[in-house]
Amino acid sequence: MTMPKGPQAFPRAEYLRRLALVKAKMEQREVTSLLITSPADITYLCGYTAKSAYIPQGLVISLKDEEPTFLTRRMDAPAAVHQTFMERDRVIGYPEALIADPDKDGFDALINFLRDDGLGGGRLALENNLLSAKLIDRFQAGAPGTKLADFSNEVPWIRLVKSDLEIEMMLEAAAITDAGMLTGKEVMRPGVREADAAAEIIATLVRGVNGKVGTDLRRVFICASPRSGTAHIIWTEDVFRQGSQINLEMGGVRHGYVSALMRTYSIGKPSDRLRRVHDAEVAGMEAALSAVKPGATCGDVAVAFNTTLKKHGLEKESRCGYAIGIDWTEPTASLREDDHTVLQPNMTFHLMLGNWIDEDFGYVISETFRVTESGAETFSALPREIFEI
Amino acid sequence: MTMPKGPQAFPRAEYLRRLALVKAKMEQREVTSLLITSPADITYLCGYTAKSAYIPQGLVISLKDEEPTFLTRRMDAPAAVHQTFMERDRVIGYPEALIADPDKDGFDALINFLRDDGLGGGRLALENNLLSAKLIDRFQAGAPGTKLADFSNEVPWIRLVKSDLEIEMMLEAAAITDAGMLTGKEVMRPGVREADAAAEIIATLVRGVNGKVGTDLRRVFICASPRSGTAHIIWTEDVFRQGSQINLEMGGVRHGYVSALMRTYSIGKPSDRLRRVHDAEVAGMEAALSAVKPGATCGDVAVAFNTTLKKHGLEKESRCGYAIGIDWTEPTASLREDDHTVLQPNMTFHLMLGNWIDEDFGYVISETFRVTESGAETFSALPREIFEI
Repeated sequence: MTMPKGPQAFPRAEYLRRLALVKAKMEQREVTSLLITSPADITYLCGYTAKSAYIPQGLVISLKDEEPTFLTRRMDAPAAVHQTFMERDRVIGYPEALIADPDKDGFDALINFLRDDGLGGGRLALENNLLSAKLIDRFQAGAPGTKLADFSNEVPWIRLVKSDLEIEMMLEAAAITDAGMLTGKEVMRPGVREADAAAEIIATLVRGVNGKVGTDLRRVFICASPRSGTAHIIWTEDVFRQGSQINLEMGGVRHGYVSALMRTYSIGKPSDRLRRVHDAEVAGMEAALSAVKPGATCGDVAVAFNTTLKKHGLEKESRCGYAIGIDWTEPTASLREDDHTVLQPNMTFHLMLGNWIDEDFGYVISETFRVTESGAETFSALPREIFEI
Repeated sequence: MTMPKGPQAFPRAEYLRRLALVKAKMEQREVTSLLITSPADITYLCGYTAKSAYIPQGLVISLKDEEPTFLTRRMDAPAAVHQTFMERDRVIGYPEALIADPDKDGFDALINFLRDDGLGGGRLALENNLLSAKLIDRFQAGAPGTKLADFSNEVPWIRLVKSDLEIEMMLEAAAITDAGMLTGKEVMRPGVREADAAAEIIATLVRGVNGKVGTDLRRVFICASPRSGTAHIIWTEDVFRQGSQINLEMGGVRHGYVSALMRTYSIGKPSDRLRRVHDAEVAGMEAALSAVKPGATCGDVAVAFNTTLKKHGLEKESRCGYAIGIDWTEPTASLREDDHTVLQPNMTFHLMLGNWIDEDFGYVISETFRVTESGAETFSALPREIFEI
């Protein structure tokens, strides 16, 4: 019996559109064959989201073929048949004996496939930043006489500008994020263990909203007093107390796409210090969002934020955001003063204004937004408040 | 104000014991200074579990110092002060300006630190398998005149044999895993969405049991008809149906340590084919566990399993297990016929008997176990049954 195709997150035409952008870049770089190994790039170009990236796998794109070919271990080939948009013969499962063999691995299957495919008649590109030098040497040996090209971050730069279909997916994810944040407001109470609150919040992120389930789960950060000065503790065995401050960061997921959000919660009346920081950061956020428009740069947005924050007597050491989409943190544009990336419609960013001011005191607020024809559209419907409990 | 130390998962003596093993290996390899970049190795050697490994960070171990030094971005230093066993001056936060700078990054801070530290007076070792060639060249430039050593997988091999304290932690994790599996039995019903069941199962894994919360979350795989032939789909938007088969794999987590488990569920009477496969696999599992004893090899266990399975007219293409601990899949010993690793007391393995027989039909069962003085001790209290719903 064969595995049926599952429901597709995007129509075939959307994947072909993305592939056309990648192929244009391949032509420009004079490569005929491209091996994609970044899990996010693989999701972007064929729809595969199963969790097998801890073993060698790769998506081969050839200028001579309309569809790419995905090679993964045999165990995961049925998932790829089910999830990807390609014809089933475009999924190849390599033998399980290659897993944990000290002498060879799944990259040998990829190298052999590329060789048999004749490298599409020319030159091979790899995402070098994700591969060891030893591995690149093996690909070179498999492609004798050709000079390999480095395609590091080329696909993430293409991913930076979303299609309307991708924006729709991120809006669905954002609605889930909002629901998770509101669950937090309900369940975080004095005497409740952080883990018990995390369980409820995460359950909301998985159940989803409006008939759209959360299709995956990313990190949920619950940094509560005395840990409000930390950024990346997920939760602890501790309980919330009267007077606790809680910094939440989370993101719902739809078919690989995440929409992130941060809000600060206070059990009881927020301190004057917390209110002052909040007011400054919200003013900075408004200034940053006002600076967003096609033609402005990432740096312009950061300058608007930093200038406003300084007027309020505060500074933020870390960058104030980054591109977001399939990866929570896309490895391309940053909202920092020296980033000259020019904003275009449908670029999406996480305007991340977490500010860890003292070792034991931090504040968080953020918005995920897209660049529109005339400004910025934020994805969350939640107020920019300190959530009082 | 300063960040207080959090409650420690292990006593200081346990970390010093682990460090002593690593330092002995350093002496044997004639290195004086070691940079650890594997997140699991960092957790093992200092107790840090916050999620910052997507940026450069590293734990420096020097023969001349009792305690290691952890360098991470400034934003994450308070979490490290809170979580690790070391004195607070052993945590160094590098400037946030190094994040997303195109010209330099946090590894420059690490290189400068190592240089100022004089490499402990001699030679530096790196976990090369986790670093790009370009990065290794940068460390070489920072340590002129010295020949770098490759410490790839040295620490994971030390991690393979657990202490009694680590076993205790894995048993706590296993109790959480069992609770998650039993939640699955309660909530998977005809008409229920897979995501809704996932939400309840995951909430159980986070809440934990016996007053011990789940301190982290790893993947939960829910591969239900028509996807029982897949191994690594987490869940879908589909609903369970009368007659559905569901393959579950999950693992509770305690302070970094995971204990994994797989069971097959059937809504309604299992098919004869499923029962036959189950009987064969359970016989194979018993044979494999009977082959476990100090002095036997990983290969002996795999041979016992494969031989028994074949007697029942079945084969399993993939390896039948792997070392487990902080990583779900430790990169060291495998239960495959050609792995000659000699079993020692307190090595821990996931005896992973998932068998994806056809594209649309697979079966799963597993046990996480430790090697004892005389045999094997499995961590789960659940029966080796097809769970009928």
